[in-house]
Amino acid sequence: MRWRYILNVVGILTLFLGLTMFFPLLVAFYYRDDSIYSILISIGITIFSGILLHFMFKGEKVENLSKREGMAIVTFGWSSACLFGALPFYIGGEFGSFVNALFESVSGFTTTGSSILTNIEGVSMGLLFWRSLIQWFGGMGIIVLSIAILPFLGVGGMQLYKAEVPSPVPDKLKPRIRDTAMVLWKVYALFSLAEIIFLMLGGMNLYDALCHTFTTMPTGGFSTKNASIAHYDSVYLDFVVFFFMLAAGINFSLHYQMLRGKPLAFWKDSECRVFLGAVVVLILVVTFNIFGSVYQSLGQAFRYSSFQVMSIITTTGYATADYEQWPAMSRLILLLCMFTGASAGSTGGGIKWLRIMLYFKYCYRELFALLHPHAVTHIKIAGKSVPEDVMRSVMGFLALYLGLFCLCSVALAGLGVDFVTSFSAVAATLGNIGPGLGAVGPVENFANIPVLGKWLLIWCMLLGRLEIFTVIILLVPEFWRR
Amino acid sequence: MRWRYILNVVGILTLFLGLTMFFPLLVAFYYRDDSIYSILISIGITIFSGILLHFMFKGEKVENLSKREGMAIVTFGWSSACLFGALPFYIGGEFGSFVNALFESVSGFTTTGSSILTNIEGVSMGLLFWRSLIQWFGGMGIIVLSIAILPFLGVGGMQLYKAEVPSPVPDKLKPRIRDTAMVLWKVYALFSLAEIIFLMLGGMNLYDALCHTFTTMPTGGFSTKNASIAHYDSVYLDFVVFFFMLAAGINFSLHYQMLRGKPLAFWKDSECRVFLGAVVVLILVVTFNIFGSVYQSLGQAFRYSSFQVMSIITTTGYATADYEQWPAMSRLILLLCMFTGASAGSTGGGIKWLRIMLYFKYCYRELFALLHPHAVTHIKIAGKSVPEDVMRSVMGFLALYLGLFCLCSVALAGLGVDFVTSFSAVAATLGNIGPGLGAVGPVENFANIPVLGKWLLIWCMLLGRLEIFTVIILLVPEFWRR
Repeated sequence: MRWRYILNVVGILTLFLGLTMFFPLLVAFYYRDDSIYSILISIGITIFSGILLHFMFKGEKVENLSKREGMAIVTFGWSSACLFGALPFYIGGEFGSFVNALFESVSGFTTTGSSILTNIEGVSMGLLFWRSLIQWFGGMGIIVLSIAILPFLGVGGMQLYKAEVPSPVPDKLKPRIRDTAMVLWKVYALFSLAEIIFLMLGGMNLYDALCHTFTTMPTGGFSTKNASIAHYDSVYLDFVVFFFMLAAGINFSLHYQMLRGKPLAFWKDSECRVFLGAVVVLILVVTFNIFGSVYQSLGQAFRYSSFQVMSIITTTGYATADYEQWPAMSRLILLLCMFTGASAGSTGGGIKWLRIMLYFKYCYRELFALLHPHAVTHIKIAGKSVPEDVMRSVMGFLALYLGLFCLCSVALAGLGVDFVTSFSAVAATLGNIGPGLGAVGPVENFANIPVLGKWLLIWCMLLGRLEIFTVIILLVPEFWRR
Repeated sequence: MRWRYILNVVGILTLFLGLTMFFPLLVAFYYRDDSIYSILISIGITIFSGILLHFMFKGEKVENLSKREGMAIVTFGWSSACLFGALPFYIGGEFGSFVNALFESVSGFTTTGSSILTNIEGVSMGLLFWRSLIQWFGGMGIIVLSIAILPFLGVGGMQLYKAEVPSPVPDKLKPRIRDTAMVLWKVYALFSLAEIIFLMLGGMNLYDALCHTFTTMPTGGFSTKNASIAHYDSVYLDFVVFFFMLAAGINFSLHYQMLRGKPLAFWKDSECRVFLGAVVVLILVVTFNIFGSVYQSLGQAFRYSSFQVMSIITTTGYATADYEQWPAMSRLILLLCMFTGASAGSTGGGIKWLRIMLYFKYCYRELFALLHPHAVTHIKIAGKSVPEDVMRSVMGFLALYLGLFCLCSVALAGLGVDFVTSFSAVAATLGNIGPGLGAVGPVENFANIPVLGKWLLIWCMLLGRLEIFTVIILLVPEFWRR
């Protein structure tokens, strides 16, 4: 493990993060709000730390990263961004304790969207802007992570995507990351620009349009309003946000192909087909479940069902309705959506539909194997056999995901959190959704979770965002040997 | 598929079932209660149907059963027992509708213990005796199923046990079943006899001692009292039941080895070690969780915690305390116990600790594989490598179990059942426990579940008891071909 190089990279990341803090500083100046002072100090600390790390650990030239080093950079890079990103929240004192500031920052960079703020609209404009912006950066990180880094590291079956990454030098991690990132960030920026325009056409001011775009495209879900998107109560805005959540929940490689003139790419991709099919079915089921019992018009039922299902399944977490008041079936479906998540290669979290598909095929193969024990059967995706080691990775990921969910739920309950809140808070953070059920439902928040519980959920957000293996491997003694 | 033979076997089973109905008839005569009439009619119908099936489909000689035929016999045999076993409940009218009678019968034969009776003590003695007795028969069926049949069929990874079955003719199903059954039924009968004696020493009358033994040894959980074991409020009886639940939750092959003078067998068996370890840890955690908050004395907390954890983890389902009133952590742990279940080869249900162990090893192997992608690693149990196809079966079983749990929970909620009740009712029936949480908690029952929901849970009980694959394979079109 070449630690000098890893810390040097983390240093550069930190330096850049410090520079991006000038954006919220500008906003704070424009609105002349209280956060100028805390943002300025944060910029100072962050840039200084970045330069310090960079120069202290300069010198080691690394051409080919090992997997271990890749995982270390990902985990430590994300963690340090979360840490320095929390500074503006902490220094001003508006977020209360340090754990609160860190919780909000981790929730930002992991594009989760769980919040400890009880009165969002009372927070200064500069900090709210930063809170949204870090989700947008988190999303940029995720695109690179899921399409360029994880397939290379072979985490959780994502090596399936190895062949499909548009990269001229397929076997070296660094050029792969650079090229892929550039291509896909352009797509990300283009969608973001479009959303800003469409939101403003619906009457949102520039500030809110920026903030909401910064939290839609990464499927983050932070809002500048206490009532989230429900604040605007506009069918047009609901639809715009719905559309961009959907876009953010689809593999960005497909968007890239579409922009290159291959609109059929969406249909040719089996994961995308299954994801869209599942979304349609779930929206219809929830619509009929809440129609009559909660909403008296079918149109309203459809409006709120479609928005809420899309918001949860893409792991965004915006709310236009208090789904806590919906019948048990709808709440269970939303809870399941927290697990499935969106597509692999999107900015969404959760297990992801590629793995869900492989899971179904795995189950079916076992039934088939009972009838034909001597037949050799391969699981196929898009006509190609999935190697057995990839299947093992996928099932291992699922197993670890569920195991951690159970363990963390029990631990959170042990801290005095109630039954439904415990497991839904863990589901919502591990899947990077945002709100859960019970006391962390869409109209409440994570403020009342005990301090240790917040630390636990911080850990869950990071675990989920970095596809579990990348983080948990640091706990395996084997990782540190040699 | 040799249907004549299969239906012939089902006919013989039915005939025997009809003969066993003379036991409750004797009880009904002794207490001169109202059930004499309904039991007599049931005996007539059952014996007549059995003879009819037997003679209609006589003639086909089968020496070597195919796997398909084995699965068909298991599923149809169990289903027909449940159907005819429901007759005494239905004909007398004491259980209300037919679905209620069937629910109670399925809950009996699958040794689940979920009940639709709101006033157990008001039911006639003959029928209560039958209700307990069918659990005891169900337990006999399970021992044969899990130790002799499933390993042969290769269901859910149970082929692991193939080598360990004490059978002189290891490759033919019929002699294997016969020999294994005889050996293990002796153990089962011996434990039952011991429990009857110990219960009576604690002041229980013969009738209650018989009924409770018949529902402890198969980890069934039906009681003749509304308040379950809490009715007696006796530390001695709690302990006796605790001990026999534990015995019933351990692989019966180990009991057999112990009786042959190898008491170390328990310790040498890795599943048994892990199961006992888990039980101890969970009892301690729950004890400290309920101590202070629910019980003011540590002794009381330990008494109720140990009984309730043992009752749920062995999938018995007796209650000495209303665990619905316990803190969230304890309830979550009990919910998880509904999934883990007891040991393979015991009469307990659920996923079983052998599979849980393999699941943990699978997760660890994936972490290891990330660090050493080229190393070939085998998962070992008791020093022996577990073949990859067995591992696939185990993971397939887990996947199917969780998938069905999710699907059935959503479906039950769709019928208007509340949130916690939906998933805990499915967990409690799929794992063959008995009571769940919420409206099907330990002091309530399944009476208020809607009719369609009862049918769904009947299906869950059968699925869980027959290790899912055996039942669900009937839905695969491939099964019916050729």
